[in-house]
Amino acid sequence: MSRIRELSYDDQELAITWENASESHLQAIWLRDHCQMPASRNPDNGQRLLNITDIPLDIGIEKVNFDNDKLVVEFSPDGHRSEFDPDWLYQNCYCLNHQYDDRSETSKILWHGLAFAQALPRCAYPAFCEQARSKLAALQAVRDYGFVLLDSVPCESGQVLKVIETFGFVRATNYGPLFEVRVRIDPNNLAYTNLGLGCHLDNPYRDPVPGLQLLHCLDSSTQGGESILQDGFMAARVLRDENPDHFAALSQNWINFRFRDDSADLQSRVPLIEVNDRDEVVKVRFNNRSIDTIKLPPDAIKRYYPAYRHYAEILERPELQVVFKLQPGELMLFDNTRVMHARKAYSASGSRHLQGAYSDLDGLYSSLRILAAGT
Amino acid sequence: MSRIRELSYDDQELAITWENASESHLQAIWLRDHCQMPASRNPDNGQRLLNITDIPLDIGIEKVNFDNDKLVVEFSPDGHRSEFDPDWLYQNCYCLNHQYDDRSETSKILWHGLAFAQALPRCAYPAFCEQARSKLAALQAVRDYGFVLLDSVPCESGQVLKVIETFGFVRATNYGPLFEVRVRIDPNNLAYTNLGLGCHLDNPYRDPVPGLQLLHCLDSSTQGGESILQDGFMAARVLRDENPDHFAALSQNWINFRFRDDSADLQSRVPLIEVNDRDEVVKVRFNNRSIDTIKLPPDAIKRYYPAYRHYAEILERPELQVVFKLQPGELMLFDNTRVMHARKAYSASGSRHLQGAYSDLDGLYSSLRILAAGT
Repeated sequence: MSRIRELSYDDQELAITWENASESHLQAIWLRDHCQMPASRNPDNGQRLLNITDIPLDIGIEKVNFDNDKLVVEFSPDGHRSEFDPDWLYQNCYCLNHQYDDRSETSKILWHGLAFAQALPRCAYPAFCEQARSKLAALQAVRDYGFVLLDSVPCESGQVLKVIETFGFVRATNYGPLFEVRVRIDPNNLAYTNLGLGCHLDNPYRDPVPGLQLLHCLDSSTQGGESILQDGFMAARVLRDENPDHFAALSQNWINFRFRDDSADLQSRVPLIEVNDRDEVVKVRFNNRSIDTIKLPPDAIKRYYPAYRHYAEILERPELQVVFKLQPGELMLFDNTRVMHARKAYSASGSRHLQGAYSDLDGLYSSLRILAAGT
Repeated sequence: MSRIRELSYDDQELAITWENASESHLQAIWLRDHCQMPASRNPDNGQRLLNITDIPLDIGIEKVNFDNDKLVVEFSPDGHRSEFDPDWLYQNCYCLNHQYDDRSETSKILWHGLAFAQALPRCAYPAFCEQARSKLAALQAVRDYGFVLLDSVPCESGQVLKVIETFGFVRATNYGPLFEVRVRIDPNNLAYTNLGLGCHLDNPYRDPVPGLQLLHCLDSSTQGGESILQDGFMAARVLRDENPDHFAALSQNWINFRFRDDSADLQSRVPLIEVNDRDEVVKVRFNNRSIDTIKLPPDAIKRYYPAYRHYAEILERPELQVVFKLQPGELMLFDNTRVMHARKAYSASGSRHLQGAYSDLDGLYSSLRILAAGT
């Protein structure tokens, strides 16, 4: 229980000194907006029942006192009465608590390739399905490192969609609910050849970009074709450390991406490095194949290219990459707003067949929270 | 054909004066990066075959001349040779052309409610399905105004999903592939009561937010329950016009949204007004029910509340709203990153049943472009 040592207030502010000497200074309007009474909040689902415009323009604090360990605030001019549990105020007030942000670089574990020299984050699919604890650990790996490898996944066509259904929802695209990664005649995308592919994220031309990608290996008997993963958030941090102006050039200048074939014409205007209001990385994009004509203003072009090249050069540094060969029955699940993937070229002899699909981060994070609350 | 009047170059820049006296000054690295030759671009799908790091660090222009109406650029130090069609350069160079941005307020037609006093953007569903021109016009209405009404949509359960399949892909969520909007016992969301709902956008607690929402009316025999739509981009513009500091407070301070029930716990940290690199609105969010505890720093709190209240007050102005009653067989399709919706309370007698579903903007815009190219 959070004990209050001292309390004072005026019309606009309630000041609390807590037993541990920390202080909260809370605005009248914030207190009224965060009233936890049944008339203000639906007690079942926690949804706010009032609109900010329902609060009188000249809202003030009339009186504050204690009643049965509750802090009772009476507001002027409407006489509204709110009871606050001191524990709730201590744990939720804006003076002592920060917002949560699961997507920002600050809440992730950034990594170099060597971090996984001993082992990749990995989970057996049967355990993933049967044990909440295994599944939770696997989803936490996606949240923290941006990827996990599932193994012993049945080598059946369409299985990748069943895996998504265990934690979220399939994001169907113009490629279908799932896409086949193997050598094709007349490929509409270089992914469907046996060429190597540089580090990239998928679908930057799509807005919103799918937040998760799964690649399930059904067959792999070629020479080569190794998978490469790397932490795009780490690459962005390296860029910022080495040259803050380059980081700023890539986050402050948005560019066009495009993919076009007979049945789709997808266009976006987005940054290579997307930051939040605190200039923290929340999303990266990189795909040399699908950057459309760059039409930044002339001054920005001069500033952009050295930054873009610098970032691309960082992405090629072997120490940032982890390299492994996906075996039949293995599936990699990765955050497509963070973890870049690449593949080495592979031989024409033998066969290689992956099935891929997209999903979104909201479903995975929600499943993770529900699991964490239950274990 | 774009004729070149004058041409000059040095190691780093190609300068072109066009017949209409406009000028292009093109950097060597941009020219090399935009080489259109088969070795640099896949001629079938237009994908770039080179990485920015494949370009020599000291790339320069060695020589420029004409060959069969092509501008031939030879680069140092590697001797790479690029042929450019002058028309292509004129239409694509960054000096004379801007980036496209379908999502920004600048490419939309912003509206007040009176704009639709005569008629709402509307399309008969049979024509939508059978005539490319009708479908194109309807999708353009979504792009330009943010919404369209389809009528004569078969009153069959699940039809809303079939409508999505005509232009894009269903975004399934924890509410299911579709959701039923009618009065429920023990609702997990106020939408499933007969209470009025203030202007809001759906699912701000979801990241990425679904870009499109469809509401299909299957039954409506209650008193009340009218639908209200309003242009959130216009509301943001009004806010900026009336008080730029308030606009800045809402775009520069991201906040938490949350929805929680037994099976889902969705959290986001996003702004009420999302802007691009040019400070143009690209997305708005508003949902008083699902704003989580606001934990901005104390200084930001003082700046935020007046702005938030001002914006909410603008959203309630009747002149910004269009009001109509959705009839059975009508479906509204609207941009959930722009157009806010609300509903009036309705009577307990009679019945009201809508089916809703979500989709994403990328699929709709892609279909629109393919249709426009073919008509």
